[in-house]
Amino acid sequence: MRRTSLKTANCPVARSLDVIGDWWSLLIVRDAFRGLRRFSQFQKSLGLARNILTVRLRGLVADGIMELVPASDGGARHEYVLTGKGRDLLPVLLALRQWGIACFPDGAPWGSELVERETGRPIRKLELRAEDGRPIMPADVELRVVQTP
Amino acid sequence: MRRTSLKTANCPVARSLDVIGDWWSLLIVRDAFRGLRRFSQFQKSLGLARNILTVRLRGLVADGIMELVPASDGGARHEYVLTGKGRDLLPVLLALRQWGIACFPDGAPWGSELVERETGRPIRKLELRAEDGRPIMPADVELRVVQTP
Repeated sequence: MRRTSLKTANCPVARSLDVIGDWWSLLIVRDAFRGLRRFSQFQKSLGLARNILTVRLRGLVADGIMELVPASDGGARHEYVLTGKGRDLLPVLLALRQWGIACFPDGAPWGSELVERETGRPIRKLELRAEDGRPIMPADVELRVVQTP
Repeated sequence: MRRTSLKTANCPVARSLDVIGDWWSLLIVRDAFRGLRRFSQFQKSLGLARNILTVRLRGLVADGIMELVPASDGGARHEYVLTGKGRDLLPVLLALRQWGIACFPDGAPWGSELVERETGRPIRKLELRAEDGRPIMPADVELRVVQTP
């Protein structure tokens, strides 16, 4: 089910969703953040048919979000790792995570937390902030349309 | 095309995507943030078939992200507005927006900016921060699996 491409849409939210607005693609990125690298690992985690997973992984590589690298054990298979652009999706995943925890707390207790690598301490929640750094609420924010010349 | 429900998945990212992981649903939420309220306004903005838009709006209402209110002009039609849970999606949209601007700058110049309602000044970018408030990069963060008893 492919729809109109929005890759060159005016709205950057639409451009992002064009690339990672597929439910499975973001879950693959999530799994890559938690250290999965092999096709078989993604397949086991997501319970996804091989052909669908193949298409999603190819798409993520084509869009520069993941890249193929030689297997870390020196074997014949390759592995999938996040590129810089892929790692830059962390705020998107973190925002989705916060919203999921706040709005759908009836899931099982979640089995992971995001920590700073160096200190092992949990990172802060994402916060909306005004230009001068004050924390603000979603209700304090509005989208202003900018007239283009 | 409905897939396994992840509403009660362990992972809060999966729970969120179960609800708003549909490309159109997040674009409807985006449009609601920029002030659209009527069925016809969403239809015009998204270029979406009536039946598909109807299903998406019903889903957003059923999930408590939008609600139906009487039309602001006192007419017979109703309008769709974001609930608190819907407004709480702003960090998700903002994270997608930032990523879209950074990674796909070849879209047309975007036609909007997010400003603080009271001051009219642009809000800050979302930032990853350590527990003590230091800004950190995605590469500094890791996902730690928590053993559940």
